[in-house]
Amino acid sequence: MTAVDEETVRAFAVSRRAQAMPASPIRKLAPLAELAKARGTKVYHLNIGQPDIETPACMLDRLKLIEDKVLEYSPSTGTPAFLDSLRQYYVNRVGVPIETRQILATTGGSEAILFSFIACANEGDEVLVLEPFYANYRAFATMAGLNIVPVTSRGRDGFHLPPREVFEKALTPRTRIVIVCNPNNPTGTVYTRDELEMLAGFCRDHGLFLVSDEVYREFVYDGRKAVSALELKDADDFVIVVDSLSKRYSACGIRLGALVTRSGEVYDACLRMAQGRLSPPGLAQFIAVGAAGLGDEYTRAIVDEYQRRRDVLYEGLRTIPGVELAKPEGAFYCVPKLPVHDSEDFAVWLLTEFEHDGATVMIAPASGFYASDLGKSEIRIAYVLKEEDLRTSIELLRVALERYQRRDVAV
Amino acid sequence: MTAVDEETVRAFAVSRRAQAMPASPIRKLAPLAELAKARGTKVYHLNIGQPDIETPACMLDRLKLIEDKVLEYSPSTGTPAFLDSLRQYYVNRVGVPIETRQILATTGGSEAILFSFIACANEGDEVLVLEPFYANYRAFATMAGLNIVPVTSRGRDGFHLPPREVFEKALTPRTRIVIVCNPNNPTGTVYTRDELEMLAGFCRDHGLFLVSDEVYREFVYDGRKAVSALELKDADDFVIVVDSLSKRYSACGIRLGALVTRSGEVYDACLRMAQGRLSPPGLAQFIAVGAAGLGDEYTRAIVDEYQRRRDVLYEGLRTIPGVELAKPEGAFYCVPKLPVHDSEDFAVWLLTEFEHDGATVMIAPASGFYASDLGKSEIRIAYVLKEEDLRTSIELLRVALERYQRRDVAV
Repeated sequence: MTAVDEETVRAFAVSRRAQAMPASPIRKLAPLAELAKARGTKVYHLNIGQPDIETPACMLDRLKLIEDKVLEYSPSTGTPAFLDSLRQYYVNRVGVPIETRQILATTGGSEAILFSFIACANEGDEVLVLEPFYANYRAFATMAGLNIVPVTSRGRDGFHLPPREVFEKALTPRTRIVIVCNPNNPTGTVYTRDELEMLAGFCRDHGLFLVSDEVYREFVYDGRKAVSALELKDADDFVIVVDSLSKRYSACGIRLGALVTRSGEVYDACLRMAQGRLSPPGLAQFIAVGAAGLGDEYTRAIVDEYQRRRDVLYEGLRTIPGVELAKPEGAFYCVPKLPVHDSEDFAVWLLTEFEHDGATVMIAPASGFYASDLGKSEIRIAYVLKEEDLRTSIELLRVALERYQRRDVAV
Repeated sequence: MTAVDEETVRAFAVSRRAQAMPASPIRKLAPLAELAKARGTKVYHLNIGQPDIETPACMLDRLKLIEDKVLEYSPSTGTPAFLDSLRQYYVNRVGVPIETRQILATTGGSEAILFSFIACANEGDEVLVLEPFYANYRAFATMAGLNIVPVTSRGRDGFHLPPREVFEKALTPRTRIVIVCNPNNPTGTVYTRDELEMLAGFCRDHGLFLVSDEVYREFVYDGRKAVSALELKDADDFVIVVDSLSKRYSACGIRLGALVTRSGEVYDACLRMAQGRLSPPGLAQFIAVGAAGLGDEYTRAIVDEYQRRRDVLYEGLRTIPGVELAKPEGAFYCVPKLPVHDSEDFAVWLLTEFEHDGATVMIAPASGFYASDLGKSEIRIAYVLKEEDLRTSIELLRVALERYQRRDVAV
């Protein structure tokens, strides 16, 4: 290859930020799982948050009602019917007064996060993120040219917020945004009103935007209620709520979410981005309106189901020697600490060398959910499997850990 | 207001890029149109590219076939069925060999543009854009932190490409991308193979990516065939095609498009962004597969319809004194020059002061499609109205221009 050729090759290199774009920590072991399945091993997936709960019939049935001859653009903000159904949901079910002009329908919660990052910070600015965190926050930050600065929550505290001093220490002149996921993916922690008020006070005092990702709002256990950031006092100027129908109605594939804010300036900035991409998915909005009739009994049944699974998982993991886990409070994830030095090595070993009764489990190493180098002994578990499969998965983990530890000794 | 209050207000200001985000030039006159309608005036919309053609029944019918109990995430790349239907479309109908691993399903063409901008350039880099251009390129560039640098095409040349020297002159050390829309929105120009080869040579010699927005590919008249950038020789390393089903199948609302590239590096970068946002719209992909059976006869009927409308519009506009327009070659837009000094003032006047037989027309001032200060006498027309309405609209324009010019004299 000549010097000119090399120059040409370099010239067509992708951007630095494209190179910095993280591969999904949840998906990167997928090829190994495929190989295990090809060998005939059954793989129990504790690694992916795709709920197995059915999408409500009142949404699915609307697919049969679509009479449009032309599937036209919807308004950039969302259809009036969908926006109004969301407004009613906020007023009646979240207990938060909100206007449709404060709601922007988005393509999943994902787009709402990207819009808020771009609206609230410039390239090179910083986002304070409570780690461990939903790994894709890093993808959106990279797309928006922002740097992730972690504030660590600890398993020994049930991953609740550290004291305000810890946030103060992480502050720099470039800090613009604090993002919090409540109830939390990946830890399953539900923050108290006091914790959120502390966070709001920190943001208010330093002129930071608070992006509150509340897509797991409904999934809270033991009688808890998730506090929405929209309930916080004197926070209208800086609170942006990210919402999604994906988990609430087990409709991840329709890609429908929302950005909710009482800040007119943030709303207008996001609206201009929304106009740029023309409109959110139309079929999704049409069927989403069907969820308007769902009341407490719908939510309660699902929450009861997840709480039972949470109990099975928590009780089961506690009996495995060396596993540490505070009782998960919400969402359908948890981050247990395992008696291993490198959970990624363990996760790979599970898929490549382990098998018990023809089966293994797939787990997500937690290091992908940290911006610091912590979390090496932790994993993220999604408990979206039915009870029986969860019990089998726990048993597999127990046998695997025993065997993996013996292997360490043997080597 | 105290100094502290002022400081607080500034602290919660949105980002510079959010402030720079353009409002849609197509939509900003919308409130005036609403007022006109409220006064009882019928408004003919020549300003919006929402086709009135029916979405094919073979797509709509699939809505009744959805049997899924859970509307799950699709793969980040798109469903295998949808990707394969696109691959076949490229092989059989565009005549371009392509693999499914070179196709990424996106949320409309919009997401494909944003992904390619972020993948190919860093913040502060420049995108060469042929002006007048699709106004939302500026929105995506702003979101991606890129600067738009215009290369002007002229109405007197039918908006064909200027010679290569003009591109060379616009080049700076920060130029990373050239974006071209072919067939062109807003001008209706279809570039020849020679023009595209010139552009590819320019990109190849300077190590620039060529983003080719081909969402109007099917809509070419007088026996033309649109040349895809995927047909260009020795261009695999730097060509990225933006595609969409919105116009091809009159399905704008489903938000389904694609990014197609033979560059593995660009594909991988965009894939990581795609994984970050989890998946493209699922219902859209399911019904899109229904389009696989559509052949030449489907396209021909629609192209014939648009060509008839193009003829009506072109012949009609030519007879209005002072209007200049080269015959549009494709898409369903054109940019005529009117005998007015400020087409935005004229567009406002049409909605606020003009009425003829109880009706008026809404047009898009072309200045919003320019990055330079050119285009003040031009407008963009979308001819997605049926023939009869088009004829009425042209007649209204003729009467309006006469009256508007007299008004100028009177003042």
